[in-house]
Amino acid sequence: MSAERWDSPVSTTARPAAVGDARRYAPLPEPFRFERGGELRGGVIAYETWGELNGQRDNAVLLFTGLSPAAHACSSAEDPSEGWWERMIGPGKAIDTSRFFVVCVNSLGSCFGSSGPASVDPATGDRWRLRFPEISVGDIARGGFETLRHLGLERVAAVIGASLGGMVVLAFVARFPGVARSVVSISGSAAASPVAIALRSVQREAILRDPGWHGGNYAPDAPPRTGMRLARKLGTITYRSAEEWIERFGRERIDRDVAPMRENSFAPEFAIEGYLEAQAEKFVRAFDANCYLYLSRAMDRFDLVDDERELVPTLARTGLERALVIGVETDFLFAIGEQQKIATSLQAAGIDTQFARLDSREGHDAFLVDIEGFDPPIRRFLAAL
Amino acid sequence: MSAERWDSPVSTTARPAAVGDARRYAPLPEPFRFERGGELRGGVIAYETWGELNGQRDNAVLLFTGLSPAAHACSSAEDPSEGWWERMIGPGKAIDTSRFFVVCVNSLGSCFGSSGPASVDPATGDRWRLRFPEISVGDIARGGFETLRHLGLERVAAVIGASLGGMVVLAFVARFPGVARSVVSISGSAAASPVAIALRSVQREAILRDPGWHGGNYAPDAPPRTGMRLARKLGTITYRSAEEWIERFGRERIDRDVAPMRENSFAPEFAIEGYLEAQAEKFVRAFDANCYLYLSRAMDRFDLVDDERELVPTLARTGLERALVIGVETDFLFAIGEQQKIATSLQAAGIDTQFARLDSREGHDAFLVDIEGFDPPIRRFLAAL
Repeated sequence: MSAERWDSPVSTTARPAAVGDARRYAPLPEPFRFERGGELRGGVIAYETWGELNGQRDNAVLLFTGLSPAAHACSSAEDPSEGWWERMIGPGKAIDTSRFFVVCVNSLGSCFGSSGPASVDPATGDRWRLRFPEISVGDIARGGFETLRHLGLERVAAVIGASLGGMVVLAFVARFPGVARSVVSISGSAAASPVAIALRSVQREAILRDPGWHGGNYAPDAPPRTGMRLARKLGTITYRSAEEWIERFGRERIDRDVAPMRENSFAPEFAIEGYLEAQAEKFVRAFDANCYLYLSRAMDRFDLVDDERELVPTLARTGLERALVIGVETDFLFAIGEQQKIATSLQAAGIDTQFARLDSREGHDAFLVDIEGFDPPIRRFLAAL
Repeated sequence: MSAERWDSPVSTTARPAAVGDARRYAPLPEPFRFERGGELRGGVIAYETWGELNGQRDNAVLLFTGLSPAAHACSSAEDPSEGWWERMIGPGKAIDTSRFFVVCVNSLGSCFGSSGPASVDPATGDRWRLRFPEISVGDIARGGFETLRHLGLERVAAVIGASLGGMVVLAFVARFPGVARSVVSISGSAAASPVAIALRSVQREAILRDPGWHGGNYAPDAPPRTGMRLARKLGTITYRSAEEWIERFGRERIDRDVAPMRENSFAPEFAIEGYLEAQAEKFVRAFDANCYLYLSRAMDRFDLVDDERELVPTLARTGLERALVIGVETDFLFAIGEQQKIATSLQAAGIDTQFARLDSREGHDAFLVDIEGFDPPIRRFLAAL
């Protein structure tokens, strides 16, 4: 982190960063009004940055995350731990920080520093829990926009997002025309599909019906474990692909030595079940259940336009110059057809659009794993900006 | 039901049928030994029949069901209620009862008359529950075989099964070579895939972790409702296809007048969620949780041969003359590649094999819904026997 950055508006922090913590905090306007009603005072968005803002202040890239990651997309001197898109961001990488000033925000409603159901209501000193206003994908987009304002940035070279982030970037360009010169939408959607709604509905029900949820009033160290485990196991299944698991796990059994105690004949027995166990346990420790419910429902409700005939006209009003849409053939949750539709609509709106159709075997999560597949189209697109 | 049938060995019943109940009961041998260990005394298989056995006793067709249906595949004079394959079975229909004598069995381990965790152990007068031996797909096949023996049938013209039944028919022909002249395997598998194991594992966990499961000792009128609801909702999602739901439900909302009380903003809101609700509630009333756990785990463990190199030689020893394999392109749970593999292996084993690859939009459940698609290949195959 250079001294210059500490002196620029970029470095303004709402709270001091902890040791090993690269987060800064952008205060939200007072009050921040939510699209579905309700307002927030004392709200903040946690964000991290990489690279330097140039003199023309025109090299910023705004990055939105999927449902569960924090703003820590990449390591830095302040926080050397590996970020969730480590192989994609850095000097000389596809999102080249020797050229771009990259800002990643923790979604409004999430639990990694931004205001949400798990953060403390300054008025009461207690967690917001279900008193937090309902969140929309548009609110998350606005959280990113307010972060840019806080950084003194009026325009960005690109907004980039995958999964939930792929929805958010569309909401962003529709709500804040002229702010982004280009957009990269990865494995996103212009309107949640019924099968994705169905899957998220089952995930939420697993949490809502867990007696440990207590109507949202669980203690931070006693989350609704069963519900969160089930939700994450189901999530993990839909984030990957059947093809990948045939190659990775096949019908292998869990090693007897490491297998959990066999309470009954229904205990995990196959390697794929052991993998789900590991994913579930990690998630229970990492993510807040109420935040999960809020963000999950926001995704269901996302529909960029109420009337589909408005889709192309809405995109035409964004002021976008260029767009890149990336979709994965094996994505079960955000199907390739949804990506194709976004690309076709952007093109029909007069925006110079590229569509990369990848055959990665990793399904919806491919953007996190198949860097070999994702690097070239993103690199080429950003290099030409 | 003709008088002749009441006088033939076919009509022998282990228990008298109730009014409006067409089930007969085939006693299992004493003891019935399970493939994974354990044995059963006083076991029975519930079955129903349609059509007449001919003088040569060579026109029988044995039908195995999917995970949840009863033996009531079709209506009859004794039980005029609609069966689960009503449009497929009957005089002049694809499975033509004016020519074939059709026998459908309730799977061993299920809860519609056959012995299983929900049936009563004659030695104790209490339900078996988890004391019931572990079931394999091969045990279910043997339940069908013993039903044929009980009916005095040494050979059948065909064994037919879909889903779990599609696995059972493969286990049947491998274990009882020479008994079936032909086989029809629909949306089945020669070895459970990791993604199907993963999904069933999550379904079972939802039941196992429901406090209402009580280690399997729930009262019959107080089942583990939450677990069964979640399991069935997830099942319903994987039994159909994303494409079907886009057409049927899209992003329609539940009608306000019929929507359930809104406890919180996470309550069902979309039409697809209302559909899942209806499926879940029906299932909780219809199926036993312990039986579900047993059958679900049996499916995971199914692998026709331990060593894949044995697949073709095993099929070559079945004595099958002809085979029909039907798969559905949109099937997420039993992928089309699995059907292709069964067909290729049967053909490689020297069996005259037809493979019907259907583009039904209804996914794994298409055999229950898309009768227009399934009728022609089954009709042609059976007509040529």
